[in-house]
Amino acid sequence: MAAKARTDLEVLDQADPLAGFRNEFFLPEGVIYLNGNSLGAMPLAAAERAKRVVEHEWAEGLIGSMNTAGWYTLPSTLGRKIAPIVGAKANEVVLTDATGINLYKVVAAALKMQPDRRVIVMEGSNFPTNNYTVQGLLEQLDKGYTIRFAEADNMLDAIDEDVAAICITHVHYKTGHILDMAAITAKAHAVGAAAVWDLCHSAGAMPVDLNGCNVDFAVACTYKYINGGPGAPALLFAAERHHGKYTQPLTGWYSHAAPFDFERDYRPVADVRQMLTGTQPTASLSTAEIGIDIMLRADMQQIREKSMRMTDLFIELVEQRCGEFGFELVSPRDANLRGSQVSFSNDDGYPIVRALHDRGVICDFRAPANVRFGFAPLYIRYADVWDAVDRLYDILANGTWKEAQYQVRAAVT
Amino acid sequence: MAAKARTDLEVLDQADPLAGFRNEFFLPEGVIYLNGNSLGAMPLAAAERAKRVVEHEWAEGLIGSMNTAGWYTLPSTLGRKIAPIVGAKANEVVLTDATGINLYKVVAAALKMQPDRRVIVMEGSNFPTNNYTVQGLLEQLDKGYTIRFAEADNMLDAIDEDVAAICITHVHYKTGHILDMAAITAKAHAVGAAAVWDLCHSAGAMPVDLNGCNVDFAVACTYKYINGGPGAPALLFAAERHHGKYTQPLTGWYSHAAPFDFERDYRPVADVRQMLTGTQPTASLSTAEIGIDIMLRADMQQIREKSMRMTDLFIELVEQRCGEFGFELVSPRDANLRGSQVSFSNDDGYPIVRALHDRGVICDFRAPANVRFGFAPLYIRYADVWDAVDRLYDILANGTWKEAQYQVRAAVT
Repeated sequence: MAAKARTDLEVLDQADPLAGFRNEFFLPEGVIYLNGNSLGAMPLAAAERAKRVVEHEWAEGLIGSMNTAGWYTLPSTLGRKIAPIVGAKANEVVLTDATGINLYKVVAAALKMQPDRRVIVMEGSNFPTNNYTVQGLLEQLDKGYTIRFAEADNMLDAIDEDVAAICITHVHYKTGHILDMAAITAKAHAVGAAAVWDLCHSAGAMPVDLNGCNVDFAVACTYKYINGGPGAPALLFAAERHHGKYTQPLTGWYSHAAPFDFERDYRPVADVRQMLTGTQPTASLSTAEIGIDIMLRADMQQIREKSMRMTDLFIELVEQRCGEFGFELVSPRDANLRGSQVSFSNDDGYPIVRALHDRGVICDFRAPANVRFGFAPLYIRYADVWDAVDRLYDILANGTWKEAQYQVRAAVT
Repeated sequence: MAAKARTDLEVLDQADPLAGFRNEFFLPEGVIYLNGNSLGAMPLAAAERAKRVVEHEWAEGLIGSMNTAGWYTLPSTLGRKIAPIVGAKANEVVLTDATGINLYKVVAAALKMQPDRRVIVMEGSNFPTNNYTVQGLLEQLDKGYTIRFAEADNMLDAIDEDVAAICITHVHYKTGHILDMAAITAKAHAVGAAAVWDLCHSAGAMPVDLNGCNVDFAVACTYKYINGGPGAPALLFAAERHHGKYTQPLTGWYSHAAPFDFERDYRPVADVRQMLTGTQPTASLSTAEIGIDIMLRADMQQIREKSMRMTDLFIELVEQRCGEFGFELVSPRDANLRGSQVSFSNDDGYPIVRALHDRGVICDFRAPANVRFGFAPLYIRYADVWDAVDRLYDILANGTWKEAQYQVRAAVT
């Protein structure tokens, strides 16, 4: 695995079975985009699709496009498409609303499956909006629910027979640490708790096997590794065995058994569409199909292998060339435990990230000292890994990151 | 007001101060679009904006567009813009999520303001998704809440001191009947109830004075008369006097007091952004600005006057020319009580609507027998009113609506 020169990585690119996918994305000249874990790059075909939705379907089709362009059924038709990417059946997934809204629905549904229990297990260091969502829900329920916060190393122990549900993120937003979905779900089921998973940092970046792990409910955003576009509606999975047996609170006409009968009272449809609420942001939802279609043509095992190799190489090169500048690996060193991103801590992380941006390396900073680099296997090349480290070394060796502007910007952010 | 010939209406178009706005919209050749009350037509500039969001902001700006293109603050910046259209202050409105999701948030907030009361008043014949939303919320709360359904004629009597909140639609989706926002809100406040209004069929079609009526919370979709595009995120209004004093259950990082500090626990921001949840569908949200900008340049009083005159003329012409074919007016005859749409009942409504579509007159059918025509004053001409009735008469006189295909399609819908 030792890489001594850029040519070693060029050889890997030449042999990369995924190399052709890069041509399907727009990437600005000179930019090494290591932030696909926040927002995936634009597939070239997405521009045409977005144009079609607006200039043809909206402008010319007008309200008729609800039927003729399939707007009304988009949450299900796209859910059906995206399902295999997360190991779900076609009838178990919808694309709808935002990730946090969907998390609210599925956690509410999961808690009702164990109505006498009052504990939900979450990872405290998790992307905090998940905590906020569940805290809002529990306050709303007003029945004495509490969150039991655990971390990777004590997660299994935290799941006992007081637990109604677990709500866990598969890959950690900051460290990239992968939690063991099979083992944690099995423990939850062993104590009679429902398992809810957040796949935001794993869907599209690695094989995910929701049904193989017997997961009850899951959510994922589609704008990271799936390249669905900024704020594209989110994935929601409900295992078929629960269809018609749960309730979710965000009811609306899209989840009614007979939406066009305009009945006064709510009657839910008994399939995954019960998770729908109302009219969807069509331009965003329809455009997301392009990224899904690309992902469906890629081999997920190849994606995972490239991801592991790229992140291994990145760690090796950063430690080899930049170790003296105070970079400490935050992500797991074992690629099997690591998602498609690498985080290092550095006390000067913020100004260093700013300086990297100015050199065309887009990565991000997460307080207090975390520098995060994401590697999207469909459009990042092995040579990009070399070049990113090369620019990082250059910034550090020349001390350009110390310039006053970066310090000031750090202070006000 | 009597119109004897098409030329009488052409004269009105020549004098119409809003006539120029039609040129800012795309309307398909030969189509008379009387369904802007379902989905507004596309402003020509929306195509360019949608292209910019995707091909420039997403493709080139990538994640940096959260700041450089203002994505992160769009819910507030567009809320600030749209506020005057509904009589709100700039700091009282956000654009976010879907109408039903927003209704859930505001009704939940309103109910908590009278924690000891258990009744909410709604209009039973209302667009039923509002009922579904509130029914889902009440079932979730599980505290013995009930909906007291009332109609226009007994609404004030239904609001008594058992009522925690009212949740009323300003203009009826089927009849176009306008409810008296000032009187009903005053009655609610007189008995200590909070007032929530749904402006879906009034925002952009007539003056709405939320603060003049002292409304507590409101929602509206932006894809009807505001022409924001299919499923564009919805308007949410929270009166300034309640800021920092309510809670809403759909919490997320967008409503956190310090979203980029990634704190573990939720702390709400104390302004209207507390109504936000998470990341928004950016292509849809950003494109909605175009319709808002056009609306802001139009005089709302002129919009209302044209709307009343067009709907008066439509009723007059339909009754005069098509009365013998069984059309009965469902909408209020008094224009002061009527929104920008006209409904007639007709036992053969469905096949007649299909036949009208095939003649380029786009209107819609609402079960069981309601034929609904919407008049968007920014792009519908007085002459269109004449032409629509002319085509309707032609279909009825020739009996073309009786063709087998329309009957079959009616049977399966």
